[in-house]
Amino acid sequence: MLTVLDLVGIFVFAITGALVAVRKDLDIFAVLVLAGATGLGGGFIRDVLIGAVPPAALADWRYLLVPVVAGLVTFFFHPALGRVERYVTVLDAAGLGLFCVTGALAALDRGLGLVPAALLGMITGIGGGMVRDVLAGRVPLVFRGELYATPALVGAAIAVLGERAGLDTGLVAVVGASVCFGWRVLAVRRGWNAPRAARSAST
Amino acid sequence: MLTVLDLVGIFVFAITGALVAVRKDLDIFAVLVLAGATGLGGGFIRDVLIGAVPPAALADWRYLLVPVVAGLVTFFFHPALGRVERYVTVLDAAGLGLFCVTGALAALDRGLGLVPAALLGMITGIGGGMVRDVLAGRVPLVFRGELYATPALVGAAIAVLGERAGLDTGLVAVVGASVCFGWRVLAVRRGWNAPRAARSAST
Amino acid sequence: MLTVLDLVGIFVFAITGALVAVRKDLDIFAVLVLAGATGLGGGFIRDVLIGAVPPAALADWRYLLVPVVAGLVTFFFHPALGRVERYVTVLDAAGLGLFCVTGALAALDRGLGLVPAALLGMITGIGGGMVRDVLAGRVPLVFRGELYATPALVGAAIAVLGERAGLDTGLVAVVGASVCFGWRVLAVRRGWNAPRAARSAST
Repeated sequence: MLTVLDLVGIFVFAITGALVAVRKDLDIFAVLVLAGATGLGGGFIRDVLIGAVPPAALADWRYLLVPVVAGLVTFFFHPALGRVERYVTVLDAAGLGLFCVTGALAALDRGLGLVPAALLGMITGIGGGMVRDVLAGRVPLVFRGELYATPALVGAAIAVLGERAGLDTGLVAVVGASVCFGWRVLAVRRGWNAPRAARSAST
Repeated sequence: MLTVLDLVGIFVFAITGALVAVRKDLDIFAVLVLAGATGLGGGFIRDVLIGAVPPAALADWRYLLVPVVAGLVTFFFHPALGRVERYVTVLDAAGLGLFCVTGALAALDRGLGLVPAALLGMITGIGGGMVRDVLAGRVPLVFRGELYATPALVGAAIAVLGERAGLDTGLVAVVGASVCFGWRVLAVRRGWNAPRAARSAST
Repeated sequence: MLTVLDLVGIFVFAITGALVAVRKDLDIFAVLVLAGATGLGGGFIRDVLIGAVPPAALADWRYLLVPVVAGLVTFFFHPALGRVERYVTVLDAAGLGLFCVTGALAALDRGLGLVPAALLGMITGIGGGMVRDVLAGRVPLVFRGELYATPALVGAAIAVLGERAGLDTGLVAVVGASVCFGWRVLAVRRGWNAPRAARSAST
């Protein structure tokens, strides 16, 4: 169950990475590299921080196949994907929701406490997009003034608390991922903005 | 003692991260994320390199509270901080001095030798600022032509040698941090510049 | 044997990092930092991912001396190096070939399987250049539309398969590195380009 959610998250994140590469007119290998770095980056960061090295993704062929397929699909069919660019943010939000939950539950599995596990879930969720944006020379999405890190932290906290309360893992994962996903999508669609610091003449 | 120095270092580094985010007109969540990444980034890199995972900062609420407070203080009071921008470099230098010492002593604690411990101290000191600048799309401070890495390495070396010589850890930490801090501040204030490569028509 | 190849790879990568710093008119410390980060970055990423922490490079003085020498040589003699800029790509290709092989064999030594070892070889090869380009604010070379990641993966695969087949490690390393090096140099010299995604009016 968690593995399936993880693979779906990798797939949607990898597509967002591949789209960024295609938009920059990069060649097919750059598309595959950025798809892989985006899809697997968050999980690598999580695995290194919890000491689960070498990361499972390096040994499991499914974890390698998924970003390659996502990259190839994007490369060959991107005009169709381009037309639905408004759904790209939705894909990113879906990956965020899935990864914050799987990251948090993986940390719990390693014996971490509630707070570290929730934080690791958030880091896993935002890590892939950060790797994508830093490598592509863009300001990371998390800094562009839309609500991003908070839904990931809340989704991860829901998963951690539900799991610790003895609820069904699958249910807990779906609820946590859905809350993060729905919150993020609504924030983007409705143009919710978090407050910015007051401007003053002295700055 | 070391924990206190570590927390003070996290606080001042987190303020520099939050200030960069505020100056870019980012919202409050971006401010908190950049404050946290800057304050905790150097320690995360250190912990991963010495195998102390999961990093203590993920489990200790004080390590999480400090960057949040630093981010909120900066967000709400930044006009005042803005007026004292010339002291921002001083805060960064203070964080550099504190982290190069705590990083080096933490590495010694894990059983590393003198040279690796001093290098890890330097990496810890410059790591947080590098994370801040890379995420914010700025050229890292360490590359901007002012003396930066050398004071961190010397401060770490003082701490390592003093500790190995059996001196009081608190004394050693204060001396190492002060040397690094003073050197760095003087280099900035007096415009010390390291030599640059000779220009030639061929380049 | 492998250590020698590793040190040669660090030397040539460190020169490329130092050259980028010199071209940006940075001072001597920035040159040394970027030389060290480029030369040692790929190996650090490899060691963290396979759990070989602290990285051997922090404890072995040869691993520290080599990038310092490379940085100083570049700093003082860069006009000569500048005249041979067309050979810089060759140095980068040499480092890529050496690192993909040493990274893959180090992963095998840690007990990893064939596929993870080959992937770690590729990551080691492209990691140093990525660190250099991200720190220097350049789009990573791997995304600039020239064949880069594929030769590294193929070179690493040759080393892994040869080693597993019981062939002589030195022979296997030289063949893998040479294939990667030759492929990369030919791709640059002849302007080989991988296909790019079709353009359409909708994007």
